[in-house]
Amino acid sequence: MIPCGPSRRHFASDNWAGAHPAVLRALATANAGHAPAYGADPVTGAALDRLRQLFGPGSEAFLVFGGTGANVLGLQAVMAPHEAVICADCAHINVDECGAPERFIGCKLLTVPATDGKLRPADIEARLAHAGDEHHVQPRVVSLTQATEYGTVYSPEEIRALAEVAHANGLRLHLDGARLANAAASLGAGLRELTSAAGVDLLSFGGTKNGLLAAEAVVFLNGTAVPAFRFIRKQGMQLASKMRFVAAQFLALLEDDLWLESASHANAMARRLAAGARQVPGVRITQPVQANAVFAVLPAEYIPRLQERYFFYVWNQRTSEVRWMASFDTTEDDVDGFVAAMREIIR
Amino acid sequence: MIPCGPSRRHFASDNWAGAHPAVLRALATANAGHAPAYGADPVTGAALDRLRQLFGPGSEAFLVFGGTGANVLGLQAVMAPHEAVICADCAHINVDECGAPERFIGCKLLTVPATDGKLRPADIEARLAHAGDEHHVQPRVVSLTQATEYGTVYSPEEIRALAEVAHANGLRLHLDGARLANAAASLGAGLRELTSAAGVDLLSFGGTKNGLLAAEAVVFLNGTAVPAFRFIRKQGMQLASKMRFVAAQFLALLEDDLWLESASHANAMARRLAAGARQVPGVRITQPVQANAVFAVLPAEYIPRLQERYFFYVWNQRTSEVRWMASFDTTEDDVDGFVAAMREIIR
Amino acid sequence: MIPCGPSRRHFASDNWAGAHPAVLRALATANAGHAPAYGADPVTGAALDRLRQLFGPGSEAFLVFGGTGANVLGLQAVMAPHEAVICADCAHINVDECGAPERFIGCKLLTVPATDGKLRPADIEARLAHAGDEHHVQPRVVSLTQATEYGTVYSPEEIRALAEVAHANGLRLHLDGARLANAAASLGAGLRELTSAAGVDLLSFGGTKNGLLAAEAVVFLNGTAVPAFRFIRKQGMQLASKMRFVAAQFLALLEDDLWLESASHANAMARRLAAGARQVPGVRITQPVQANAVFAVLPAEYIPRLQERYFFYVWNQRTSEVRWMASFDTTEDDVDGFVAAMREIIR
Amino acid sequence: MIPCGPSRRHFASDNWAGAHPAVLRALATANAGHAPAYGADPVTGAALDRLRQLFGPGSEAFLVFGGTGANVLGLQAVMAPHEAVICADCAHINVDECGAPERFIGCKLLTVPATDGKLRPADIEARLAHAGDEHHVQPRVVSLTQATEYGTVYSPEEIRALAEVAHANGLRLHLDGARLANAAASLGAGLRELTSAAGVDLLSFGGTKNGLLAAEAVVFLNGTAVPAFRFIRKQGMQLASKMRFVAAQFLALLEDDLWLESASHANAMARRLAAGARQVPGVRITQPVQANAVFAVLPAEYIPRLQERYFFYVWNQRTSEVRWMASFDTTEDDVDGFVAAMREIIR
Repeated sequence: MIPCGPSRRHFASDNWAGAHPAVLRALATANAGHAPAYGADPVTGAALDRLRQLFGPGSEAFLVFGGTGANVLGLQAVMAPHEAVICADCAHINVDECGAPERFIGCKLLTVPATDGKLRPADIEARLAHAGDEHHVQPRVVSLTQATEYGTVYSPEEIRALAEVAHANGLRLHLDGARLANAAASLGAGLRELTSAAGVDLLSFGGTKNGLLAAEAVVFLNGTAVPAFRFIRKQGMQLASKMRFVAAQFLALLEDDLWLESASHANAMARRLAAGARQVPGVRITQPVQANAVFAVLPAEYIPRLQERYFFYVWNQRTSEVRWMASFDTTEDDVDGFVAAMREIIR
Repeated sequence: MIPCGPSRRHFASDNWAGAHPAVLRALATANAGHAPAYGADPVTGAALDRLRQLFGPGSEAFLVFGGTGANVLGLQAVMAPHEAVICADCAHINVDECGAPERFIGCKLLTVPATDGKLRPADIEARLAHAGDEHHVQPRVVSLTQATEYGTVYSPEEIRALAEVAHANGLRLHLDGARLANAAASLGAGLRELTSAAGVDLLSFGGTKNGLLAAEAVVFLNGTAVPAFRFIRKQGMQLASKMRFVAAQFLALLEDDLWLESASHANAMARRLAAGARQVPGVRITQPVQANAVFAVLPAEYIPRLQERYFFYVWNQRTSEVRWMASFDTTEDDVDGFVAAMREIIR
Repeated sequence: MIPCGPSRRHFASDNWAGAHPAVLRALATANAGHAPAYGADPVTGAALDRLRQLFGPGSEAFLVFGGTGANVLGLQAVMAPHEAVICADCAHINVDECGAPERFIGCKLLTVPATDGKLRPADIEARLAHAGDEHHVQPRVVSLTQATEYGTVYSPEEIRALAEVAHANGLRLHLDGARLANAAASLGAGLRELTSAAGVDLLSFGGTKNGLLAAEAVVFLNGTAVPAFRFIRKQGMQLASKMRFVAAQFLALLEDDLWLESASHANAMARRLAAGARQVPGVRITQPVQANAVFAVLPAEYIPRLQERYFFYVWNQRTSEVRWMASFDTTEDDVDGFVAAMREIIR
Repeated sequence: MIPCGPSRRHFASDNWAGAHPAVLRALATANAGHAPAYGADPVTGAALDRLRQLFGPGSEAFLVFGGTGANVLGLQAVMAPHEAVICADCAHINVDECGAPERFIGCKLLTVPATDGKLRPADIEARLAHAGDEHHVQPRVVSLTQATEYGTVYSPEEIRALAEVAHANGLRLHLDGARLANAAASLGAGLRELTSAAGVDLLSFGGTKNGLLAAEAVVFLNGTAVPAFRFIRKQGMQLASKMRFVAAQFLALLEDDLWLESASHANAMARRLAAGARQVPGVRITQPVQANAVFAVLPAEYIPRLQERYFFYVWNQRTSEVRWMASFDTTEDDVDGFVAAMREIIR
């Protein structure tokens, strides 16, 4: 049994963290009297306005319950079942969503090996061979994850280069931004700079992994919003009846740039952890630490004892590569305590 | 613009109400340190235990975000795409879920006209003509709504009679219990008496319409749980990562029978409203008021002015039948104010 | 066991008939050397040209294996899963395709009671109440069956009136023409007059029930063809690799108006049968005999003995209504023999 | 324009060939009077009996129109949407079916690089890492192609070894046998030896590529037949109404081992072609020639001129690898003419 509770934070995942206190306060504020259901309320109106400001004039946001829902419904809106998504083999949509894209969009994912989690323009071109041939699914969307599953980030220039190749070939650029805040914090770049201005067409903008309870947004950018999306969301089982409580979470996240503060803090804790771990003999950091994840290889025999103190996941059993995630509530003491535990246990 | 806010409650829907204060407190309590994601946390464990106690030893509950998700995923778990659900033509799954059952289960709904919202055993038998014929979908589930869309309720005996016909023909009995609490309160019956003990096989147990923010449970009864349901829920985009916050809502709802207290109150307010409205000349109550809904016909020309004061929906434009819903937070003053408004406006 | 063989023809269905000899000859003619697969061959080119001539300059045809495939893929091409098809409750797509439309389009069928199998303009309007409301599926297609399941036919004027209402409300008009030939023969109307010129947008043009082995066409009319349909057909498992053999069947059907000759003959045999049966005491014809079907009520106790001689299906067990279908190969002797058997058996 | 016609055979694909004359004769024989539709006729009964004899007592066959339909419906019968198929990356189901498996089963294909088209037991084991984890699709079927896309074949021992690993891990073994006849002919092995006796659970048994017009069989082996398959086939748009004409093709194919004779001949022609091509300077055969396909690399600049004489497909544009397919009707003259053309054109 993993010890949990008020004084205990692990490095398992940013979704092991709870909610930021400001988010709970926002729920209480929103909980006043009656409000129209399904998003026709003023709290939702305010959250959508705020999102439109953040992502630019041609953007339109829709709130949903979860990240898988955001990815699946957003992609469904811009493609047909006989079309395909080009993505990294490690992408969340490919590995961690139990086949929801195939099941609900009906599409195929065309995967590209990506050792650092990132697609390159040539990866797109390599997947376009069968255009127009009815026997083959037709690539229609390129999906990036930002920050990637490996805690690396795409620069605005890299995104723009991918957008250019995508658009030149009639493809849409989708961004799974479950950790977009961490990427923006890492790059010192604005959300718009990393999305609408870089040619991204649509986006899952994550909240849950950055201190919300359960709230994500599908954001269409640069005028790409699909009128039918309201129906897609309802039919897709992602329309909250008491929408104001989803919206209130986003209002809290966006107020005074809490999203940026939380993500910056998580990133800083990951860097601190990587710096500490690098000093531990036998530990090797395997990916650039650009967001809130640290990937490391360490001797397999020490992993269970370490996990008893601070839980984390083994990413690759074969190579004994592990993943450590920091979150908005990770403290310097947590990090230092974990590094000390490593020093103590790994010999 | 509908006036909303702290001092304003309407009769539009029980999902226009906010969250019960105890529910927000439970969220704060659950928000302590880190907890395993996806339901492997103690709060979820406690909520599932509590649900098991309520619904009996052979029951197993799974928490999801919303009611459409609960219905669709529960049904999907017990049927194949070439099978069919027998339900009332006014059922939520048939009318109000934007075709989600057809889309995600792939099945057909075989509907039965039901002027009071209720199915009868003969309705099931009438739909069984084509058993074994590969050209026709095969009925596999009977789905009841309790309380019905018309605010009527099934007695335990009625449910048992339907279960017997269903089971005798190899069908499962599903209950859309978005307002099961209201039915139980109305009948003075226990949840078990209305479900597991009456032969119901699986259930959507509603929380959102009874004072939660967004939380529903799929409950398999009498040992009917499907091992694959965990995968169905994840693939079905209804697995909350920070599950403890869904579970905390249910814990609050089930503690000290808050579910019953809230539902009883809503029902009482509906009865009070019906009693008041019956005294207003020109208003005719059209359905038995057995839960928290009141259906009434009133002269069409007065509806808009009434809606300006207390919003509600027109159920049938042609007959000017309207629906008034009470919720856990409806006050006697709300009801009396609404009745007074009727007296003033309808002449 | 039903006696079958060279000298035996029943009244069960027009798909109990075999293939017209001209069709087998066409297969042999097409079977010369190698030909490009998947429709890039000259036989297919010729068949598609011929279909274009028949249905007019803006038409485009695609050949498929079967009638359910034709209906499902055609409809899928012009609608989204959250949209709906308005059709008669007795429509083949609703009753006889084992839920394939729901399963593969994901859509809902909004049915209208139709005692003579025909929709009226008011039926469409009655189904449009929830336009724009995300909780409800959105009607997008009206689907007619011509000739209907009851052997009745729509006149060109009736189709035009339905097309006008459909188009005025942004709906497409689909025609399940599994027996379109029989309707055209009955009305003395051209195929174009009954389809493109009457406002039909797309069509399943049946061949199998009119003397082919297995061949149907999806025909988009008046410029409504969808470029993606080639992919929909392949993904939809309806793309024949040796397409020339599907096309050759259509070439035979369309040469020297064989389609019209065969359908006219079947219709004449149905009329002859109805005329004869009307003279048999105890038999009552229940639908106008406008195509190749005869619906009749007769005393239930005589049905089994009649079926032993000439097999046919009971349409409605409760009312002992039966259906008799004539086909291209039904002879006057068959009809007269069947009437004689009725006279002998029914007393 | 590719010259086609009676005296012209290419090396493009075995589906460029027409129908074997015996198959057309069988259609004519089956075309006698009326017969019950949908497979309840004696021709179908005879074909299914014959298939049962071939594949063993626990086998049960269902006839369908096409190969994609056979694969998709067979797989659908034995798996759930959250499950997955392990297959070679070059498998027809992965590359050439326009995403039909994902679209209609809802499942994911977990692909394994296979340079010779064949899976090994270790490939299965490597894909089993996430068993029981709801975030990941669960492997449920291993699908082999026999003969493979590269014209190689699995020996009975190889199949048995794969079946053992599959079964030991709770997986079913599926065989896409579009060219199973060619594999059996190549190995001198019986159909049963390569399927039921080797542990294959279900099978697509191909007819079209071996001289039929359009007919394939889904065969469940060793008692694995799924009662619901009749519904899956109908809902899956693969149930022929005039089934006797599908069945008659199979009867012809199985009579006097025509299947084996045709496949043996095609294989022999492929070997003759490979032998001849090996003598042409600049041509390199790249795969073992074990069935009716020859893969070769030749200088890119000569390909177009060769294709004008005998059409074939370029398999890999980058490496100028081409595929030559022989079929039941390929003659020695065709082969020798093609080799002569190579000698003349490639310098």
